[in-house]
Amino acid sequence: MTAPSSGDLAGFFRPRNVALVGASDKSGWSRMIFSRFADYGHEGEIFAVNRSGAPAHGLPGYTSVAEIPAKIDIAYIYVPAQAAAEAIRQVGAAGVRHAVVLSSGFAETGTEGVRLQAELLAAAEAAGVLMLGPNSLGFANIADRCVCTCIPTRAPVARGRLAIVSQSGALAGEFGKFAHGQGIGLSFVCATGNEAQFGIAEVLDYLVDDPSTGAIAIYVESIQNPGRFTAAADRARRVGKPIVILKVGRSAVSGAVALAHTGALVGDDRIFDAMCRRYGIVRTNSIAEMVLTANFLEKVGPIDPPRIGVASLSGGACGIYADLAEMHGLAVPPFAEATKAALRGILPDFASTLNPLDVTAQAVQDPTVWSDAIPVLVRDPGLGLIVTATPVSNNAVDLASPMSGLHAVLEGYRKAGKPPVLCNYSIQDCSQAQSDARKAIGIEIVLPDLEFGVRALAHLQRWSESILRGDPASAPGGLAEARPTGERQVLEHLAAHGAPVIPALIAHSAEEAAAAAEAIGAGVVLKILSPDIAHKTEAGGVRLDVRSAAEAARVYGEVVAAARAHSPSARIDGVIVSPMRAPGLELIVGVTRDPLWGPAIVVGLGGIFAEALRDSQVRLLPLGPAEAREMLLELRGARVLSGFRGAPPADLDELARVICAIGEAALALGPELAALEVNPLRVNGREIECLDGLAVYSNSTA
Amino acid sequence: MTAPSSGDLAGFFRPRNVALVGASDKSGWSRMIFSRFADYGHEGEIFAVNRSGAPAHGLPGYTSVAEIPAKIDIAYIYVPAQAAAEAIRQVGAAGVRHAVVLSSGFAETGTEGVRLQAELLAAAEAAGVLMLGPNSLGFANIADRCVCTCIPTRAPVARGRLAIVSQSGALAGEFGKFAHGQGIGLSFVCATGNEAQFGIAEVLDYLVDDPSTGAIAIYVESIQNPGRFTAAADRARRVGKPIVILKVGRSAVSGAVALAHTGALVGDDRIFDAMCRRYGIVRTNSIAEMVLTANFLEKVGPIDPPRIGVASLSGGACGIYADLAEMHGLAVPPFAEATKAALRGILPDFASTLNPLDVTAQAVQDPTVWSDAIPVLVRDPGLGLIVTATPVSNNAVDLASPMSGLHAVLEGYRKAGKPPVLCNYSIQDCSQAQSDARKAIGIEIVLPDLEFGVRALAHLQRWSESILRGDPASAPGGLAEARPTGERQVLEHLAAHGAPVIPALIAHSAEEAAAAAEAIGAGVVLKILSPDIAHKTEAGGVRLDVRSAAEAARVYGEVVAAARAHSPSARIDGVIVSPMRAPGLELIVGVTRDPLWGPAIVVGLGGIFAEALRDSQVRLLPLGPAEAREMLLELRGARVLSGFRGAPPADLDELARVICAIGEAALALGPELAALEVNPLRVNGREIECLDGLAVYSNSTA
Repeated sequence: MTAPSSGDLAGFFRPRNVALVGASDKSGWSRMIFSRFADYGHEGEIFAVNRSGAPAHGLPGYTSVAEIPAKIDIAYIYVPAQAAAEAIRQVGAAGVRHAVVLSSGFAETGTEGVRLQAELLAAAEAAGVLMLGPNSLGFANIADRCVCTCIPTRAPVARGRLAIVSQSGALAGEFGKFAHGQGIGLSFVCATGNEAQFGIAEVLDYLVDDPSTGAIAIYVESIQNPGRFTAAADRARRVGKPIVILKVGRSAVSGAVALAHTGALVGDDRIFDAMCRRYGIVRTNSIAEMVLTANFLEKVGPIDPPRIGVASLSGGACGIYADLAEMHGLAVPPFAEATKAALRGILPDFASTLNPLDVTAQAVQDPTVWSDAIPVLVRDPGLGLIVTATPVSNNAVDLASPMSGLHAVLEGYRKAGKPPVLCNYSIQDCSQAQSDARKAIGIEIVLPDLEFGVRALAHLQRWSESILRGDPASAPGGLAEARPTGERQVLEHLAAHGAPVIPALIAHSAEEAAAAAEAIGAGVVLKILSPDIAHKTEAGGVRLDVRSAAEAARVYGEVVAAARAHSPSARIDGVIVSPMRAPGLELIVGVTRDPLWGPAIVVGLGGIFAEALRDSQVRLLPLGPAEAREMLLELRGARVLSGFRGAPPADLDELARVICAIGEAALALGPELAALEVNPLRVNGREIECLDGLAVYSNSTA
Repeated sequence: MTAPSSGDLAGFFRPRNVALVGASDKSGWSRMIFSRFADYGHEGEIFAVNRSGAPAHGLPGYTSVAEIPAKIDIAYIYVPAQAAAEAIRQVGAAGVRHAVVLSSGFAETGTEGVRLQAELLAAAEAAGVLMLGPNSLGFANIADRCVCTCIPTRAPVARGRLAIVSQSGALAGEFGKFAHGQGIGLSFVCATGNEAQFGIAEVLDYLVDDPSTGAIAIYVESIQNPGRFTAAADRARRVGKPIVILKVGRSAVSGAVALAHTGALVGDDRIFDAMCRRYGIVRTNSIAEMVLTANFLEKVGPIDPPRIGVASLSGGACGIYADLAEMHGLAVPPFAEATKAALRGILPDFASTLNPLDVTAQAVQDPTVWSDAIPVLVRDPGLGLIVTATPVSNNAVDLASPMSGLHAVLEGYRKAGKPPVLCNYSIQDCSQAQSDARKAIGIEIVLPDLEFGVRALAHLQRWSESILRGDPASAPGGLAEARPTGERQVLEHLAAHGAPVIPALIAHSAEEAAAAAEAIGAGVVLKILSPDIAHKTEAGGVRLDVRSAAEAARVYGEVVAAARAHSPSARIDGVIVSPMRAPGLELIVGVTRDPLWGPAIVVGLGGIFAEALRDSQVRLLPLGPAEAREMLLELRGARVLSGFRGAPPADLDELARVICAIGEAALALGPELAALEVNPLRVNGREIECLDGLAVYSNSTA
């Protein structure tokens, strides 16, 4: 059975009649499960199935699903692990096409569990049953009131546009509870568990199409179907539906924990980051950040330009905002000159016109400062969003207080024709009544806290940038080219794809070496050319700074003799003669292939920087010049690019172009390329040159 | 008038009878001010004073404080700025010794305001009135029910052991509101405003002595009295009373905002960080982090060893914890072998014994896993605290649920003889009723959220370390030594304080140069010795890699001639002959003097690292070897110290000793030293040597 389509899942996630297979009044679990249907507002019917056909939870009991006198849309199975495969067979035999297996004791518990899970999967496939789980707490399609889950929740569940998908059932419940506390409504919640048949990727694909869902929050330890995942993420980016993810595995310890936990592969975390960047997926670090950011991006949508201005009547709040912005990579662009001039006419003399804007306590005395300043800020052509940081606490007293100036703030947004976007100072719960009180005065979008606010705004900035940037560079088509091996072949392959490489002449004799040195002029380097000698320097096969034709002729003989002495059986094809380059800024550009996410490119500072700092940036391929430039500027040591030890500033546009060319050269070698490395890529102002190249291929037969 | 003592403030902060100077029923401000007394639970009497003697807020009115037929402990003044000085004079004349000036329009508003503030201060001093403000919202001594403030609050205020002091009135209210939402009680709250007469430092000093206060949370833009501040912080560290600070000014923009806001100097932020480290002050970045951390440190106290173990039944929560720990510098030490062996007897076979410990869903089926595992963890000799990450949500339903295993967790702590320390997954409000429900089952210490929990635990780790470390190295006594100038004098001064410096012989003739080269052996460097030539290389006064006595004799003449040609009037004292050192790892060690916090030392990687990365660490002087070692290990490029380009690993103990010696050499030069720099400090395994040194003095007369 192939993984289910988005349409298959649209059917799966809309059950009306649910059979509880394993229902029993004696089981605390079963009682809890039954109670969840009311908590989440299930509208279909529920039926109890157990071995003895005993009634349970006030429902008549049946000994099998086949006995139930109604069409069953889904079976919720929580019999012991050993009995689950047989339960699936019975469910299939009764004509039920969908099941959630809550039972645990499968792949998460070791070898015997892996065997049981394989047996369960085979049973489901043979019976034609589409199965979520095992070890899955299930799902609640809150928008459609179709429930099949025991994910913990606060009742009543608030309906809204946020969907939550989690590989951990416990955390799925936590995300929902946190959202509830913040007055954020949900459309859907699902815990995917062991994902024997389908998981995060397929559910994401479904949710991109789900009209009830406006934003998708995902907790994940590892992704089983990366192709499906990225295709769905790409569709979400195109329609501006935010995907916000919390993935563990950033730290070595956490990787070990997740391995212990799920037995699943935790891919290289930096490549996962690169994948998120490529597809505009927002990556967060905590439950609160994930839920608040997803909700905020859904409410605001992408902004253009992707830059944000802020105003507050607390200078202290402005200071906290500015510090947090620097910490989290949120731009704080200065206002346009016209904006500043207009603000000077509104604010008292002693006020500044910096972003974040401190409107000063003057706005308490005279709230028209607010209603006049906000339209001025909204008109600033450099800003795509104006946020007002002000206590919009959840206390009705504060909302009504004239001290807060809130009515003048709202008047300002009304005059500007924009919905108000407010940021409270510190996080507090927001009840339904509080949320209703806000809505009654026109407040729908509130960031609950300066810190989570800045983090959400930084995500909004980057997400908007990713949407504005449009589609990533497309991969070159065509068949894989012949495999270059050896330094010269790799450099020639790079040159064919537009990367400048160091010139080289091949000499087959002392005379040719002399002529080559003459032709190149100044100092040259001689290197032995042999497919059989990997470590040329150790073989005495490299000589630097050869200064004349005569010296080149002599050194030719020495190099060949040394190489022969070192490797008597090696085939020697001559000697490479290249210009000697002065020491300068060196980069390393490498392409690697991740088993999950495919080819990725890494750019780092070379030489001692590489040794000391491992300062590098990673992106997925293919890559456009804007992204390549961004990689360079995001290096920690980026300032060496703007002129280093007397060298001219690097030509960043040209350097970005060369990096893209290296990426294309790698892609042209097809999926068997395991690694391509240019080390060093020499940079001296506008002179950019690959000095050495290496290609490694995987062992599989092409 | 000198700044008030802690005892003076103990009197100031205990008013019973308060006069509201400026009270009026017509003023919204005045009505709000009056209502705060009840919100904070004031127990003394309140009197209304205004120009016309009209009654206000249901109180009889008086035209001046002198008319009031009761002893007034404090006057709360909110007349217009222009009238404030006269109000203070009247208050003083009536024999009232304390006042809070709420009126704004002083130094925060520009030149005219500065003048008014000086006039106000002079009036207060002349009248013998101790004054908080102007532009101060006042204070509430919540523990003693003595109130003189209009800081916004939630009523009823919860009494507890956290004190809040803030330079911003708006934020003081926010901190209190956030604490209220989290069920954290307060002992004291104060907004210091413009701090004309006293401010943060003096209030901190008072709170260190206040028995009702267990932890102090401070919001600050700049500190006016650094000596008083650090002395108070030092006392707090000795008694284990945590100080948790939120200071803006990390970013350039925020510095500008604070300047615009208060006109106060924002000191160099990295030196402020160094000061916090020195005195065990916990520095935080947001309102929630500050309040939650202060409360948590107060509840738990310092731990020894300063290392933390965690257990959870959610592998996902363990993963999030581990990632956040790495991000925030919280150690996640492995358990001891005996701990792991004992855990293997408790947990299912497929479980790991990593920290954070995933007890697996087994603990849901069999809660004795919890009650057995927790005592094992508590006994681990490497850990000072065991935290259980589990949903302790604020919902009574969850607290009582057998699913959570909470009772078994509590049983585990009871068996181990420790109070339970729990960490909820995500932040939610905690009402008084919820807090009471927790206490009823023995839960007093709850971190409300995985992220804020990890941040608070990382602070607990560092704070405990700072307390265990004990007193910082003490400053060497004695008078300032004679000022060394010039490279050789500075190096000799460093050598006298125990820092190894490159050997040098002074040659006054070609013969002496030859003899010196002979004595040193191998290659030597010759440098002109002249008090008048600052840039020796440009003057042709430096020659590297001189290989023989004969060459040294010749080069002596060339160097002297070149220097004479370059600077004909320079006094030439000879030529320095030193050994030529091979290139190697270079550090820069510099001492600078901060106007607020005194001498500070910076250690950074030298050479191209310095240019490219500005990778450095800053600490206040004096400095102990443990701190110096920590500075080295916290460099981003620290890995170059463990062996670089074939060089042996640096001897960190010796290197730390040398850094301390440089610090002592700087301190010995007294307060007129503006900067002392060793650049480079050459490191080659155990060979550590100052190659060049520079000292700069301030212009003031010593």
